[in-house]
Amino acid sequence: MKRREVLKKGLVGLGGVAAATTISAPAIAKERMEINMVSTWGRDFPGLGTGAQRFAKRVTDLSDGRIQVNYFASGERVKAFDSFDEVASGNAQLYHGAEYYWKGKHPGFAYFTAVPFGLTYTEMNAWIRFGGGQELWDKLAGDFGIKGLMCGNTGVQMGGWFRKEINSADDIKGLKMRMPGLGGDVLAKLGGSPVSLPGTQIYENLVSGSIDATEWVGPWNDQFMKFYEAAKYYYYPGMHEPGAMLGIGMNKSWWEGLSKADQLLINAAASMENDVMMSEYNAKNGASLKQLVEEQGVKLRAFSDDIYDSFGEAAEEVFDETRQHSALANEIHESFAKARQEVGSWAKISDQAYVSQRNRVLGL
Amino acid sequence: MKRREVLKKGLVGLGGVAAATTISAPAIAKERMEINMVSTWGRDFPGLGTGAQRFAKRVTDLSDGRIQVNYFASGERVKAFDSFDEVASGNAQLYHGAEYYWKGKHPGFAYFTAVPFGLTYTEMNAWIRFGGGQELWDKLAGDFGIKGLMCGNTGVQMGGWFRKEINSADDIKGLKMRMPGLGGDVLAKLGGSPVSLPGTQIYENLVSGSIDATEWVGPWNDQFMKFYEAAKYYYYPGMHEPGAMLGIGMNKSWWEGLSKADQLLINAAASMENDVMMSEYNAKNGASLKQLVEEQGVKLRAFSDDIYDSFGEAAEEVFDETRQHSALANEIHESFAKARQEVGSWAKISDQAYVSQRNRVLGL
Repeated sequence: MKRREVLKKGLVGLGGVAAATTISAPAIAKERMEINMVSTWGRDFPGLGTGAQRFAKRVTDLSDGRIQVNYFASGERVKAFDSFDEVASGNAQLYHGAEYYWKGKHPGFAYFTAVPFGLTYTEMNAWIRFGGGQELWDKLAGDFGIKGLMCGNTGVQMGGWFRKEINSADDIKGLKMRMPGLGGDVLAKLGGSPVSLPGTQIYENLVSGSIDATEWVGPWNDQFMKFYEAAKYYYYPGMHEPGAMLGIGMNKSWWEGLSKADQLLINAAASMENDVMMSEYNAKNGASLKQLVEEQGVKLRAFSDDIYDSFGEAAEEVFDETRQHSALANEIHESFAKARQEVGSWAKISDQAYVSQRNRVLGL
Repeated sequence: MKRREVLKKGLVGLGGVAAATTISAPAIAKERMEINMVSTWGRDFPGLGTGAQRFAKRVTDLSDGRIQVNYFASGERVKAFDSFDEVASGNAQLYHGAEYYWKGKHPGFAYFTAVPFGLTYTEMNAWIRFGGGQELWDKLAGDFGIKGLMCGNTGVQMGGWFRKEINSADDIKGLKMRMPGLGGDVLAKLGGSPVSLPGTQIYENLVSGSIDATEWVGPWNDQFMKFYEAAKYYYYPGMHEPGAMLGIGMNKSWWEGLSKADQLLINAAASMENDVMMSEYNAKNGASLKQLVEEQGVKLRAFSDDIYDSFGEAAEEVFDETRQHSALANEIHESFAKARQEVGSWAKISDQAYVSQRNRVLGL
């Protein structure tokens, strides 16, 4: 439609008054619905929990109250790790969590949170949206009656909290450390003992000495958990979760019964949370790290090149085993590896080259 | 609500059947509306144009057809650079563009696209959403009757296309180069002659020799523009646009008259595009760069540390002048600089440290 036609049809406001046209066609009427959402996070846990809650509220708000979401934090309806089954069975419509928690059902799920030497936030988004990632996730989760969508990210995680310095791969030997997902398997290859614990149980185990070390997320979340009271060495960068994607999982039959508009509504609400949660972590991690170092006496340490080389070799072994699990696991790995090669090479020329020069010039 | 109560109230599906509850309360009815959206991009231009069009369609789809968006590409209703006035005056409700195009109205607008030595995609999101950026944008654009929201990003841009190698800052002297925004001012400080041209006019000016060099976006877009036919040296990383944020600008009175739910609908649609567009650039730039180098004979070059130091000094001068424009320009700069310090320092420990180690170990 050309401007002249628009003016002729009277579709634009006049005299500087902003006016959208209200059309006299019949108003749209839709049925209300109420859904139940479980989550793997404690109520109001910063970032992970508040992000999931923000998503739930956004669905309600976006639908102007038409879709009521009853949100149940971890333990309020089912335990964190029972969220998947609760939704797959149809007892709830939706969960928010980290897909690698379902690694026991299929190792392919790990790729949809984070894997060692894996993708950063922007790389993960590129893979999921334009590199075939979503299609493979649909295939994997669909076999269990689940439809997944991205809904948040913690960004690059820290390497973890240790009581002693980690100067060589030998220092990993015998180390009992909380680390879930394939990252834990890498630790095991180097002689460590990975332990999987929900967030709520880490602190007590670290303080009592039941575990020697732990990773959790990053400065903002880790400070909240007070790990610095029990371990002073804080290592970076984490090889195990370079951009831990969080997701929602929906009961597939329920999802498929939704209108296209309602599917898009949920997708948009989740997509917005993907960006909002990542922004919050990036905005808050820096200040928390500063406090940890300056006020809580935390010693910040970088993993050496040698240790990273050892992590790299162990990760390859873990990937080889993962690929042997099934044709689908292999297919997911190959797709992931292709994205890592292509998008990762671009990151070197773009983000990595730029931030490195900028921070050098500015002394950041 | 505890599980027992949920069961009692019959709100959950039984026997493995996924079922959301349909409530018998009255259905929601809303008025339809039709709005006009102009844009600064050519129809179907990859990324920038298709992203803006995808956003327009998403608003319609999200509202299940209730909000009709009539999309006008650059020149179809008004010229690209008249988009702002078209919306501020209320002739259209909405534009999609790059805020630095309105730098002539107020230099503060440059900060809401990209400034030299500025923020990457994730850093920009952190500043806008959690660092006070949105509030300052509202203050600035509000003075012109506009409400802006993030709606896309190109990521770190390339440094540009040159006919000769750029070995020192001296090689910038006398160079006539297409570069808008404050980046162009940095070029001028080094003795270059920045030219501002809309995308559609760059190629002909480069081929005819009216300009010696140009920047545009990155490999995916630049390959489409065929700049390699006229200039063979392709430099990285660009100091001028480290994460060019695109945005929508809405007529403020119109925006304020919308219901909360419709405001959120537009916000969610824009937010989703922010993530989707960035993902598409990251997914496609790598492959295009490979083709440019291997098939089109392009010579990829990194700017030296010396040149970056010169860029850095010139950028500081440009910022000093920009801050002197007005109290608001100074306030925006200070807020930006604080975010760059805090989030940029965190990027060094997280993304930069990780990608550097990962790519070293994997040989990417």
